[in-house]
Amino acid sequence: MQKVNVDELKRFCANALVNAGVSEKNAETTVDVLITTDMFGVMTHGTKNLHQYILKMQAGGLDAKAEPTVEAEGPAWGVVNGNKAVGMVSACKAMHMAIQKAKEVGIAYVGVKNSCHFGAAGYYSNLAASEGLIGIVMSNADPVIAVPNGKTKAIGTNPFSFAAPLGDGKSIFLDIALSNVAALKVIMAQEKGLDIPDTWLVDEEGLPTTDAYKFPKNASLQPMAAHKGYGFAVLVELLASVMTGAGILSEITSWNLDLSAPNNAGHAFIAVDISKMMPMDLFVSRINQMANELRNAPKAKGADRIFLPGEMEWEKRAAAEQSGVLEVTDAMAEEYKKLSELTGIEIKFI
Amino acid sequence: MQKVNVDELKRFCANALVNAGVSEKNAETTVDVLITTDMFGVMTHGTKNLHQYILKMQAGGLDAKAEPTVEAEGPAWGVVNGNKAVGMVSACKAMHMAIQKAKEVGIAYVGVKNSCHFGAAGYYSNLAASEGLIGIVMSNADPVIAVPNGKTKAIGTNPFSFAAPLGDGKSIFLDIALSNVAALKVIMAQEKGLDIPDTWLVDEEGLPTTDAYKFPKNASLQPMAAHKGYGFAVLVELLASVMTGAGILSEITSWNLDLSAPNNAGHAFIAVDISKMMPMDLFVSRINQMANELRNAPKAKGADRIFLPGEMEWEKRAAAEQSGVLEVTDAMAEEYKKLSELTGIEIKFI
Repeated sequence: MQKVNVDELKRFCANALVNAGVSEKNAETTVDVLITTDMFGVMTHGTKNLHQYILKMQAGGLDAKAEPTVEAEGPAWGVVNGNKAVGMVSACKAMHMAIQKAKEVGIAYVGVKNSCHFGAAGYYSNLAASEGLIGIVMSNADPVIAVPNGKTKAIGTNPFSFAAPLGDGKSIFLDIALSNVAALKVIMAQEKGLDIPDTWLVDEEGLPTTDAYKFPKNASLQPMAAHKGYGFAVLVELLASVMTGAGILSEITSWNLDLSAPNNAGHAFIAVDISKMMPMDLFVSRINQMANELRNAPKAKGADRIFLPGEMEWEKRAAAEQSGVLEVTDAMAEEYKKLSELTGIEIKFI
Repeated sequence: MQKVNVDELKRFCANALVNAGVSEKNAETTVDVLITTDMFGVMTHGTKNLHQYILKMQAGGLDAKAEPTVEAEGPAWGVVNGNKAVGMVSACKAMHMAIQKAKEVGIAYVGVKNSCHFGAAGYYSNLAASEGLIGIVMSNADPVIAVPNGKTKAIGTNPFSFAAPLGDGKSIFLDIALSNVAALKVIMAQEKGLDIPDTWLVDEEGLPTTDAYKFPKNASLQPMAAHKGYGFAVLVELLASVMTGAGILSEITSWNLDLSAPNNAGHAFIAVDISKMMPMDLFVSRINQMANELRNAPKAKGADRIFLPGEMEWEKRAAAEQSGVLEVTDAMAEEYKKLSELTGIEIKFI
């Protein structure tokens, strides 16, 4: 592990983006997405990936200078063309649009096409929660999950997130992939030489396997809860892609393994203005009634705490905000160093 | 198994409802929900339960004569007070309202409070799909799931459904509970004397158990995919209850075990007008591109077909429509006979 000041990391990332051709405004937006994600402890989806995003700009799969544009819109909906711009920029624009429209009419949907990996979905759902709305976010992705009765990678992990305000600046939020476990958990089992449960992967025959080493070449992820996760992944594909004009299933390329190809992913952003349905203080009282009943439920043997969805992440974020320091893994530090070499921009660790 | 003509079953159910004090119009609505659900093969949620609904009317937990009322509404949202009316009646009213509003502005949300068990969520999402919209439906329910690190029943199975039109009168649709498996699967394991996987239940200590007999008294259901299903169940609680004014978590009673108590459940209905985002024929082409890519994916060893979500149900419905006959289990026939004795209304089996 290494340590880096949050402000130093922000400066480094913003300069690297501007150096790659991204506008200062879009660089600021992107850095906020990535660093907030790190501070929530979701370090697989934060600044670690900036090196790859910038390589993708250089390879042509991302257009550093592009701006997303609104293709069509109505009172409660919109479709945004990402124009191959940085995914975080298109995603923020779309969620802000959904929030504005929801404040007018109660709920709004904004879809995005021609986009790219947008980092962690939870950042965007929390944009809505931070303004007192419920946010729901989805994205399709390149296929890595085998569907029930299938043996090959047929649908993406299709991340899903929601966030709802607790009234204290924090939120209840969920940010998950629709596979049973993240690919990273399989990789970690490989590194430790462990067998895995037979609900994580199917092998090259489409049968459950406990052999982590088959992944990714000869194995595919299983969907969360079998046909249930498959169904949710199809819902995400519909709202994020089929209805927006984005790539469908195999039309999505791997954003980081195929750097020169546009990723072609689509996203869906939904915002719900709670204050239309009931006074905000009543909602805050009611969501905290739910939160407290869940937290105070009798604990399982050996467990001393029940967490709300997102509660662990908010505690990590608070700690990082208080210290102003992020502890990063060696693998993350390595990515920063490679990016530093690529751009000539220095980064100082503590 | 016994057989009954669909028209005979419709007549029987409608007469039983009218006999209990339900208006002819509301009886017709309710019967369509229940029989369509049976025809989809979801017989746990169809006409089998009518006997219990009518007992609940007699016990005062449901108001046979009540009509749901619109408490508040705006361009893209509404809140309906179920007024203890039959759940299917309030649910149909709310989904039709969401569809109408979505056709105006693109997407709409309608929440329902003071409601009761509404049968199968998939009926309502398919109402939207049958008009060319995407429908999303949720309901909270009395707690039967233990949340991660908890040992007692803390949150409902909170059913979730979506449906999207395929352009041929059918839909892709999902209708699931957010437990890992339905309670009915546990009961079936009990009847067969089988051990169950340790991902279905937790015991009285909150620890995974393979002993099906502990359920329901000394065991709780596990959420679908652990913390992921827990998160989805919380989302349903938020949209169906916290934001509508319905009962929250333990405020929901068991609709069929506590007949005299109002169920106090809440529902959420979302409709999305696809034709606002893209021409309908383009959407139909794109959803079928997705459908065909999934169906045609290479098959797992021993599997000869990949199903779309809802495809099995549509095939069952087509068979029932063609024959005009439903095959019902002995347990279902027994419920009809009890209802017949209660009401004096006869039912003829084939």
